[in-house]
Amino acid sequence: MRLKVLTIIVAAIAVVSCNCNENAGPSVIKTVVPERPSGQKSVIGLKAEPMETVRIGVVGLGMRGEFAAHRLTFVPGAKITAICDIEPDRTDRTCKWLVENGHEQPACFSGEQESWKGLCEREDVDLVYICTDWLNHANIALYAMEHGKHAAVEVPAALNMDEIWALINTSERTRKHCMMLENCVYDFFEMNTLAMAQSGLFGEIVHAEGSYHHNLDPFWDEYWHSWRLEYNKAHRGDVYPTHGIGPVCQALNIHRGDRMTTLVAMDTDAFNGPRIVASRGETCEDFQNGDETCTLIRTEKGKTILIEHDVLTPRPYSRMYQLVGTDGYAAKYPVNQFCLREELTAEANGVGKEKVILGEEAKALQAQYNAAILTPELEALAKKVGGHGGMDFIMDYRLVYCLLNGLPLDMDVYDLAEWCCISELSKISIENGSAPVEIPDFTRGEWNVVKGFNYAL
Amino acid sequence: MRLKVLTIIVAAIAVVSCNCNENAGPSVIKTVVPERPSGQKSVIGLKAEPMETVRIGVVGLGMRGEFAAHRLTFVPGAKITAICDIEPDRTDRTCKWLVENGHEQPACFSGEQESWKGLCEREDVDLVYICTDWLNHANIALYAMEHGKHAAVEVPAALNMDEIWALINTSERTRKHCMMLENCVYDFFEMNTLAMAQSGLFGEIVHAEGSYHHNLDPFWDEYWHSWRLEYNKAHRGDVYPTHGIGPVCQALNIHRGDRMTTLVAMDTDAFNGPRIVASRGETCEDFQNGDETCTLIRTEKGKTILIEHDVLTPRPYSRMYQLVGTDGYAAKYPVNQFCLREELTAEANGVGKEKVILGEEAKALQAQYNAAILTPELEALAKKVGGHGGMDFIMDYRLVYCLLNGLPLDMDVYDLAEWCCISELSKISIENGSAPVEIPDFTRGEWNVVKGFNYAL
Repeated sequence: MRLKVLTIIVAAIAVVSCNCNENAGPSVIKTVVPERPSGQKSVIGLKAEPMETVRIGVVGLGMRGEFAAHRLTFVPGAKITAICDIEPDRTDRTCKWLVENGHEQPACFSGEQESWKGLCEREDVDLVYICTDWLNHANIALYAMEHGKHAAVEVPAALNMDEIWALINTSERTRKHCMMLENCVYDFFEMNTLAMAQSGLFGEIVHAEGSYHHNLDPFWDEYWHSWRLEYNKAHRGDVYPTHGIGPVCQALNIHRGDRMTTLVAMDTDAFNGPRIVASRGETCEDFQNGDETCTLIRTEKGKTILIEHDVLTPRPYSRMYQLVGTDGYAAKYPVNQFCLREELTAEANGVGKEKVILGEEAKALQAQYNAAILTPELEALAKKVGGHGGMDFIMDYRLVYCLLNGLPLDMDVYDLAEWCCISELSKISIENGSAPVEIPDFTRGEWNVVKGFNYAL
Repeated sequence: MRLKVLTIIVAAIAVVSCNCNENAGPSVIKTVVPERPSGQKSVIGLKAEPMETVRIGVVGLGMRGEFAAHRLTFVPGAKITAICDIEPDRTDRTCKWLVENGHEQPACFSGEQESWKGLCEREDVDLVYICTDWLNHANIALYAMEHGKHAAVEVPAALNMDEIWALINTSERTRKHCMMLENCVYDFFEMNTLAMAQSGLFGEIVHAEGSYHHNLDPFWDEYWHSWRLEYNKAHRGDVYPTHGIGPVCQALNIHRGDRMTTLVAMDTDAFNGPRIVASRGETCEDFQNGDETCTLIRTEKGKTILIEHDVLTPRPYSRMYQLVGTDGYAAKYPVNQFCLREELTAEANGVGKEKVILGEEAKALQAQYNAAILTPELEALAKKVGGHGGMDFIMDYRLVYCLLNGLPLDMDVYDLAEWCCISELSKISIENGSAPVEIPDFTRGEWNVVKGFNYAL
C-alpha cells in the first residue's frame, strides 16, 4: 500500500556575483510523484449515485467523534448505523445517547485496535466518518474505500506523502469520495469573505495568511493517552496546517486555476515543549516540534501564502485568515477588518488611497455578501445545533447534501492532499536548512481544468 | 571604496529518503564577509568625546528633512549650523524658518548633486544628519565620516552589502558613529513592550514579527522625481525592512547575545506595480517589486523573525510588531493586545492556560512598565514637538543626548547593517527560488560580547 517516496535534492553549484544571479540555478528538493496507474482517472468533479439516506459509520468517539455523532443526527437525510471506539465505555455512551434521543440502535464496535474494520465491512454503511487520533486517519479511510465506502476524515487526514498518495490513488481507483473534514472553510467569516473575493471586491487575491495559534496546555490530557503531545514530541514541521490553509486555498482557487508549487519553512527551537513535558513529571531530551513554525508557499500564478503553527506558547487563539488583494483586504483576527480603496471610480484605475472598514461599517459590508449555500434556515439550524459555533454542522450538512443529491463534494481528495502535504514538506524544508521544497501537482495534470472554486448546488 | 561581494552557493547533491534526511546537507547562499583590516577594531560600545553643543548639518530638506530641521531646534544641546538640498528653494525655505524662529542663520548648500560635500567639509559641523533619497544615503555618510563627522542616516541607510560593509569599515577605521535614524524603535508601544520583555514578563521571546504595510499610492509624487516608485520598479526583495525589523531585533538582543544567521524570502509577482505605472500614463514591462514580500529569519539561539513588505496594495497601515514569548505575547496592530498565563504561580512552572489582555486592562498593564529613557518631561516635549506622534523627537533627543555626554549611541553601525541587509539578501533568496541565504556576523566575532540591549544613561 505504501509508496516509497524519495527526496531528490536538485542542486546547482555556482559562483556568481550578487548583481547577476542568472547563472545560479535554484536548488529545490523534490519528492517523487508516482505515475497515475494506467486506466485510472482523476476524481475531479466526481459524482456518486444519489442516495435516499446517507448511512454513516462513525469511528472514534473521543474529543471530536462523540459530539459529531450527536450532530449528525440533526442533518436531514443522515442516519448513524454503526459506531466504533477502542474504549467500550465510549461506544456504550454514544449508543445510549442515540437510543434515548429516539434513534435506531447502531451496530457497535469496540475493544480492539482494529475494531473499525468490522464497521467498514458492513453493508449498511455508505460513509465512514473518521474521528480517531491522527495516526489512524488514513489507514481507516483507505480500508473504508477498499470496502466500497466513501470516507470523511478529520484533520489532518494524512500525515505524510505516503499516506497522501495512497489516499489519492485509492479514491481514484475505487471512485469513492475521500473528503477531509476541514470545518474552518465553513466558518461564517470565511464563507462571507470568500463570497466577497469571488465577487471581485478585493480585486485579485495576491497573498493570503492562515495559522493555527492555539495554546494547547489545558488540553493535552483530553487526547487519548496524550497522543497529540506525543506527536508534537516526535515531529518537526507544521503538523496541523489545515485550518490555516484550507480557507485561503479556496479563496485562491487552488487546483481550480492555480496551484501551489514551492514552499520554504522555518521553526524555532523547542523552548516550551520540554517545559511542558517536565511539568508532567516526565522527561524528553529531544522534543521535536518548535514553538513556532512558519511556512511560505508560492503558486504557479505568482501568489504567496504564509501559514503559521504554534500550539505551545500562551497567545490569543487565531487562525489569522487574511486575504490581500490588488483592490482590497480582509482579516479575521484579532478583529474583523476590511480595507477597500476610497474611490472605486473608473478614473482611479485600481489605484488610490485605502479606506479601513471596521465595526458596524464592516458588518454592513458583510451583509451585502452571502455564501450561496448559507440559507437563513441552515444558518439558524447550524447555530442551534452548534459545533464550533455552527461551522461543524454546516460541514456535515454539505457533505450529506451532496451525497444525497449525487453532487461533487465541496472538498475532494486533492484538497486533502494539498492541505495535508504542508506537514511533511515543511519538515523536509526545515531539516534541510529551510531549503525550498517542490509541492507536487496532486491532480497530476488537471489543476487548471476547473476554473474557480464553487459549491455544487 | 566598494567591495566586490561574491555570492557563493554552497550546495549538496544528495538522494535521500524522506524519513532520513541526515545525509542531505543544506544548501546556503553565502555572501563574502571581508576580513577586518588589520589594526582596526569593532565599534561596539564606541564613545566619542563629550561635547557642549552638537553642531548639525542637515542634508536633504524634502519629505523627511525639512521637518527634521525644525524638530532638531527643540532638542536641548543641538544647533543647526548648515543645511543642504539640491533644490535652492528648499534651503531658502528652511533657512528662513530657522531665522524667523530665532536661530542663527546656517550655512546653505544647494544647486549641485554633490553640494553636500561642502557641508561635510565644514569645521563647524559635528554630525551630518542625512535625509536624502535612498541612493545617496551611504555615500554621504561615508564622506561625512571620512571628514571627521558623525553620521546619522535616514532609513534605509544602506541599500546593499557593498554599502553596508563600506559603512562598517569606515566607522571602525574613523571611530565615528554611524547611526541609522530608525525612528520606530522609539515609538511608545515598542519602547513599552521592550521594557516588559526585558523584565522577563513574556518569558523568553522565541518569535517576532514586523512589517511595513503602507499603501503608498497617495505618496509616490511626494518623493523627488518619484524616486521611490522608480526604486520599487527596479528592485525585488524587501526594499524597506528597517521599521519592521528594528524594534524586534532590540527585543531579541541581536548582536547582544544572539545573532541572525539565515533568511529565506518569497514575493508575489508584480500585480499592482504595473497598474500604478499605467495610471500615471507611463509603461513598465518589468516592474520588479512584488506586491507582497515575506522574509523568514533564524537566529543562532533558535529564534525566528518574520518580516513583511507591501507598499502596493490597499491595506491598513501596519508594522505588525508582534512578540511571541514562552510565557507571554504582545502585538501592536491592528489593536494593542497582550497575553499572559492565567496563573503565574511557581506550581504552574511556565505552562497553563492563556489570558488575553485588551483595552483598559492592557493600559493598566502597560502603565507598570516604562522605558528608562522616557521621563515624563521628555514624553511631554516629544508629543508637543511631534514627528510621527513623538517618536522622531525622542530619536533625535537620544542621539544628541548620547553625543553630548560621550555615551555609546542606542543603535550602532552593526544594527544598521543587520536591519539593512535584509534588502539585498532577500533579493538574492528570491532570485534563487527562495533558497536560504546566510546573514553575516557584521560584528566579525563580537555578537556575543554585550549581553542584552540597553540604553546608555
